[in-house]
Amino acid sequence: MNCRHRQFSLKNVRIHDRFWDQWKRNNRETTLPYQYYQLIKSGRVANFLKAAGRQPGGYTGMVFNDSDVYKWIEAASYELQRRSSPELLQQTDYLIDVILDAQAADGYLNTYIMIEEPEKRWTNLGMMHELYCAGHLIEAAAAHREATGDSRLFRAAEKFADLIHREFLLNQRIGAPGHEEIELALMRLYRAGGDGKYLDLARLFIERRGTEASGFRQEAERLPQAAGFGLLFPVDNFKPKTMHEFYREFYLAGDGSYDGRYAQDHIPLRKQRTAEGHAVRAMYLYSAAADIAAETGDRELFSALEAIWSNMTLRRMYATGGIGSAVEMEGFTRDYDLPNRQAYAETCAAVGSILWNFRMLSCTGAGKYADLLELVLFNGFLAGVSAGGREFFYVNPLSAEKDHRRKGWFSVACCPTNAVRLLASLETYIYTGTSQDIWVHLYISSTLTADIDQAALSLTQEGSYPWSGSVRFRLSISSPRHFTLYLRRPGWSSSCRAKVKDAEYKTDKNGYIPISRRWEGEEEIELTIQMEPEALTSHPLVAGNIGKRALQRGPVLYCLETADNPGDLDLLRLADLSKLAASEMPELFDGCIALQGDALRHNPDVWVGRLYAKKADLPESGEKTSFTAVPYCLWGNREPGQMRVWLPCGCPADQNKS
Amino acid sequence: MNCRHRQFSLKNVRIHDRFWDQWKRNNRETTLPYQYYQLIKSGRVANFLKAAGRQPGGYTGMVFNDSDVYKWIEAASYELQRRSSPELLQQTDYLIDVILDAQAADGYLNTYIMIEEPEKRWTNLGMMHELYCAGHLIEAAAAHREATGDSRLFRAAEKFADLIHREFLLNQRIGAPGHEEIELALMRLYRAGGDGKYLDLARLFIERRGTEASGFRQEAERLPQAAGFGLLFPVDNFKPKTMHEFYREFYLAGDGSYDGRYAQDHIPLRKQRTAEGHAVRAMYLYSAAADIAAETGDRELFSALEAIWSNMTLRRMYATGGIGSAVEMEGFTRDYDLPNRQAYAETCAAVGSILWNFRMLSCTGAGKYADLLELVLFNGFLAGVSAGGREFFYVNPLSAEKDHRRKGWFSVACCPTNAVRLLASLETYIYTGTSQDIWVHLYISSTLTADIDQAALSLTQEGSYPWSGSVRFRLSISSPRHFTLYLRRPGWSSSCRAKVKDAEYKTDKNGYIPISRRWEGEEEIELTIQMEPEALTSHPLVAGNIGKRALQRGPVLYCLETADNPGDLDLLRLADLSKLAASEMPELFDGCIALQGDALRHNPDVWVGRLYAKKADLPESGEKTSFTAVPYCLWGNREPGQMRVWLPCGCPADQNKS
Repeated sequence: MNCRHRQFSLKNVRIHDRFWDQWKRNNRETTLPYQYYQLIKSGRVANFLKAAGRQPGGYTGMVFNDSDVYKWIEAASYELQRRSSPELLQQTDYLIDVILDAQAADGYLNTYIMIEEPEKRWTNLGMMHELYCAGHLIEAAAAHREATGDSRLFRAAEKFADLIHREFLLNQRIGAPGHEEIELALMRLYRAGGDGKYLDLARLFIERRGTEASGFRQEAERLPQAAGFGLLFPVDNFKPKTMHEFYREFYLAGDGSYDGRYAQDHIPLRKQRTAEGHAVRAMYLYSAAADIAAETGDRELFSALEAIWSNMTLRRMYATGGIGSAVEMEGFTRDYDLPNRQAYAETCAAVGSILWNFRMLSCTGAGKYADLLELVLFNGFLAGVSAGGREFFYVNPLSAEKDHRRKGWFSVACCPTNAVRLLASLETYIYTGTSQDIWVHLYISSTLTADIDQAALSLTQEGSYPWSGSVRFRLSISSPRHFTLYLRRPGWSSSCRAKVKDAEYKTDKNGYIPISRRWEGEEEIELTIQMEPEALTSHPLVAGNIGKRALQRGPVLYCLETADNPGDLDLLRLADLSKLAASEMPELFDGCIALQGDALRHNPDVWVGRLYAKKADLPESGEKTSFTAVPYCLWGNREPGQMRVWLPCGCPADQNKS
Repeated sequence: MNCRHRQFSLKNVRIHDRFWDQWKRNNRETTLPYQYYQLIKSGRVANFLKAAGRQPGGYTGMVFNDSDVYKWIEAASYELQRRSSPELLQQTDYLIDVILDAQAADGYLNTYIMIEEPEKRWTNLGMMHELYCAGHLIEAAAAHREATGDSRLFRAAEKFADLIHREFLLNQRIGAPGHEEIELALMRLYRAGGDGKYLDLARLFIERRGTEASGFRQEAERLPQAAGFGLLFPVDNFKPKTMHEFYREFYLAGDGSYDGRYAQDHIPLRKQRTAEGHAVRAMYLYSAAADIAAETGDRELFSALEAIWSNMTLRRMYATGGIGSAVEMEGFTRDYDLPNRQAYAETCAAVGSILWNFRMLSCTGAGKYADLLELVLFNGFLAGVSAGGREFFYVNPLSAEKDHRRKGWFSVACCPTNAVRLLASLETYIYTGTSQDIWVHLYISSTLTADIDQAALSLTQEGSYPWSGSVRFRLSISSPRHFTLYLRRPGWSSSCRAKVKDAEYKTDKNGYIPISRRWEGEEEIELTIQMEPEALTSHPLVAGNIGKRALQRGPVLYCLETADNPGDLDLLRLADLSKLAASEMPELFDGCIALQGDALRHNPDVWVGRLYAKKADLPESGEKTSFTAVPYCLWGNREPGQMRVWLPCGCPADQNKS
C-alpha cells in the first residue's frame, strides 16, 4: 500500500494487437449480439416486463438472472465508450427502459422477489442473490453513465443503493450478501459519486462476515419461511435441487453444524489467512476489501488479503491461474488439492481473480500481482471463451475427454456475461498511472494517451506478444518532462532487457524496469524478453502432478490435444525435455506458436492380458515419437478429443533402476 | 467347463494356521457376539417382532435390514457346523423363532413391506430388496439345516421360495431382483433339495435381465405408486435421499432415459462382455449364472462370464482385487478408471468376487480363478476387517488420509455381516475334489479328511503362508490308491517346485502341479514357492498410477502407512527398487512380514514460495531415506494416518533429462 495507481479510462487506451483484436472483434461482433438475443429468448428481459406488470406470467429461470441483463449492459457500455453504435445504444436504451419500469417506487429491484414472493425481501440472503443483482445493476449503471452521459440508470441504481443503505445500515437489519458483488459495486459508486455512505455500507457488509451479523446461520434455521424455499433449481447437467438442499450442502457441515466457509463467513475477513469457499464469491469479496483498504488505509485488512493471496497462489491454484477444485460448491478445498480432471476453475473465478489482482497491483505496484493477472488472462480466463467468441466453458479442467465442450449459453449464464464484460474492458488493465509516472503491466499492442504534468503524452507499444517477447515502444510528449516509465519484467522471464537509445535499464525489486529520465519529443524504447519453451514441475504434494510436467512459453501455458497427437494421450510420455522447439502453427486461431518435442508412446499391445505387471514380466515398451502442444487458451476449438496439460515424463517401465 | 469340482463341507476341513487362526478366532469370539448384539440393538430383530404383531411400532432402518439377520444366522450356522456352542445355538434358535413367527401364512416374508406397505408387495423390485432378502433367508436356512439338522427354517425358506416361484414363474408376474442374490440362493436350494423348479426360477430371473421382462424401466415410470416411495434413506455420511432420487440416480441416464447397467439390465446377460453396474449385484449375478451354467451345460452363458471376467480383471480391478470405482453407484465405471483415493472397492464386492471366482474355478479348474480368489482374500477382502475383528471398512481405497477408519457397525451393515459369513466358511475354499482327484487351491495350514474311492484320506498342510512359500503336506490314506493331487502354482510366483520323495513335478497349463501317483500309507510332499518382494507397474492407461509402483510379496500387496513412515507420505518417492528387503515385524498382528527399501524424501522447504517451478529454478531436492511397507490387509490398525499403495518412483526434479 505504498502507492495508489490511477486506472485509465477506456477512452485513453486503444488496442491494435494481432492476438487481442481477434478476441475483441469476436466479443463485439459475435458475442454481444448473440447474448442480447439470449437475454430476450431466455425470458430474462421478460422477467422485468412481468415485474413491471406489463406482461403476465410467473418468473422464469434462475433467481439471479437479472444480473445477466446488467452485466450485458455493462459490457455494451464499454463498447459504447470506445465507439458509437446506434444499434448497441438502442438495445441498451431498451433494456434500461424495461429496468426502470420494473423498479419499485421505493427503489427496490429484483424481479424474482417482485413477481413471486414480494413479501419476502431480504429473507434469504444466503442463496437468493438480491444484493448480488443489485451490485451488478450498480456496475452497469456506472459504466453506462460514463460511456453515454445518460444518468437515468445511474439514478435508479443510487435509489436502490440508498434503500439498501437505509435497510441494512440505518435500520440495522441483520444480514450480508450471500454472493458478494455489491461491496465492490458500492465502492465503484462511491468513487463515481463521492458519497461516503456507500463506502460505509460496503465496509459494513465486509465487517459483518464471520460474525453473527451476517445472519446466514439464523437463515439456515428458518429456511422454510424464506424466499425461494419452494424453488427447484434445474442446474445444467445436474438433477434439480431444492433451495433447502443447496443451503444444506453449502452452508452446513456433514453433522448439520454451520460452516460459513462457502460464503467466506467462517471468521471475520481481517482474521482470514486462507482462500476459502465459493471461488467467485471469494474473488469479489477480496476485490472489494482491497478497494476499501486502499480508500481507508486499513493495513490490517490489507494484510489479511496478502496472506490469503499467498495461500491461494502457493497452495490452491492451478498452473492456468484457475481456482476452485470442488465441483459441487464451485470453490476452494484443501492445500495442494488440485485434481486436473475434476478441476472446477470456473471462468467467472478467473474474471474475479483478474479484478482482485488488478486491485492488489493498484495498491502496491508489486509485479507479482500483474504476473498473476497476466497468467489468468492468457490461460485460465481465455480458455473459457471459444476462438470464435460464441461459446464458453463454465468449467476449465486441465485434463479433459472429448465430451467437455463449450456451450453458447447456460441456464446459469454468469460466465458468458462475465467474459463479455472483461474482454470489452481489457484496455483498462494494460497501463496505470501514479502521480507523475506511467506503468506498463501488460504487453498488448496499444496506444495510451494521457496528460502528464500538463503535457500530452502518447505511448504506443507494438509487438506480437504472447508469441514473441520483443516489444517496441514509441513515446511522444508535447513538452519535455521528467518521469519514470515502469515496464513490467514478467516473473516467468529468465532475461529481460529494456533499452532507450544506448542506455540499458535494470529490474527493481518490485519486478518492474523503471526508466527514469527526461522524455522529450519522440522517443523509442526497446524491450526484449527472452521467451523459451520451459517444462514446469509442480509441488510434490500436488498428487495428480507427481512425475509430470507442464509446458509453458512466455505467459502461455500449453496442452496436448488429440487433434495434433493421434491415439490415446494417456499412452504418451514426454521424453527429452531439452529438445523443446517452438514453431508457427498457422491453422489455429489464424496463427499461434505451437511446441514440439520428443515423446515415447506406450504400446498397449505389450499389456495385452495384463493390468498390473512385474518389471521382469514386461517386454521393453515405448516407441519414440514426437508431440505437438498448443496454447491452453486455444484448446477445444477443433474436432472433439482429449486434452492434457500435465504429462508424465519418461517411461514407467524403465525410468527406475528396478 | 471341462470338469465339475466338488466342494468339501466344513466338517471335512479343519484350519490350524497361525495367520488365519487369529482372524477366525476374532470372527467367532468377537465379531459374531458383537453383531448379535447389534441386530438386537439396531431394531433389526424388532422388525420381525413387529411384523408378527408381537411388538408395536413402525419399521426401523433400511429396507434391506432383514438380510443382516439372515446373514448372521448363516455365519453362526457355519460355526455350529464346526463345533457345538450352546450359546450360539440358543441365539440362532431365538432368531429362527422370531422369523418363523413373522412369516405370513402364504410364505411371504419381508418385514418392511409387512409392517409399512403390505399392499405393495413386489411393486418396487429395483430398490426394495424383497427378493434379495429372500435369497439371504434361503442361504441361512440351507446353512442352518446342514449344521444342525433342524429343518424349521429350511421349510420356511422353501415355502417362501415356492410363493416366489408361483408368483413370477407360474403366474408370470413381470420383474427381476434389483439386487441379485436370490438366484444363487435358489441354486443352493436346488442343490440342497433337488427340486428343479428352483433352478427354473433362478434361470428365469437371469434370462429376464436386459429384457423388458425385468420390469425396471416400467417401475421407474410408475414409481410414485410403488413401495417405499415415501422413504428417506439416511445413508452414513450422506444426506438422506428419497427413493425417487435413488431410482433416478441409479437407473436413469442424465437425459432421463433408462440405463439398466446399474442392475446389469442393459442387455441380456448372455450378450454381456463387460463388468457393469453395482459391483456386489454384479458378483452375485455372475455367481448364480456360473452355477446355472455348471448345472445346465449352458456354454453360451459361460462364455459371457469368461468375457466379463477378462474385462473386469484386465481393465476394471484394483491391484488389491477390489472392484467398483464409483462411490455413488458403488460400481464399475469405464475401462482403466481406477482412482486410488476415490476407490469404492466395497468389502461386499470382494466377498462377491470370492464367491464368483470359486464357482468359475469349480467349473474349469483354471488356476487364474484361484489366483484371483487368493488375491481378493488376502487383500481386498481382508483389509475390510480390523485386526481385532470388531471393526470394518465398507470402502477400501488404495490411498487414504487419516479420517478413513473402520467402524463397528453401519446403518447399511451388509459388509460386516458378509465378512463374518465368509470368514466362518473359509475352509470350503481351500480344497476341492473332482471324481477321484484332490485339488489344493489355497495354502492355509489345515487338514482335509475325505473318502477317496472308498479309502479314508487325510491331507494336512503346514506352513507359514502368506509370509513363507514353503508348505509341507502330509497325506495318509487307509488303503493304497492311485489319484492325482493338484497343487496350485500361484500366478504371482516366478519359481515353484513340488517334490515327493525325490520326484519333482511340473506345472500344467492350468496353473496346477499335478502329482499323479499311487499313494500309500503316510506320504510327504514338499512345496517350495519362491517369495520375493516385487514392484508392480500398472497399465499405462491407469492415469493415477503413472510413474508409480506398488509392492507385493507372494499373495500380499503392501502399502505405506504414517505409523512406519513419519511425515507426509506424498513427499516420499521410491528409490532403488532392486534393494527391497523383507523382515519380520513382530508388533503388527502378532507378527507379519514388512518390506523395507530406499526412498527419497522431498524437502518441502525447497518449494517455499513456489507451487510450480522450472527445473532451473529448483535446487536439488530429495533426501535419501528408507521406507517400511506393511501388508495392505493390516493397514489402519494403528494410530490414524495416511496410507498409500501406489508410490511414485524417483524424484520428479531429476528423473528426466530436462
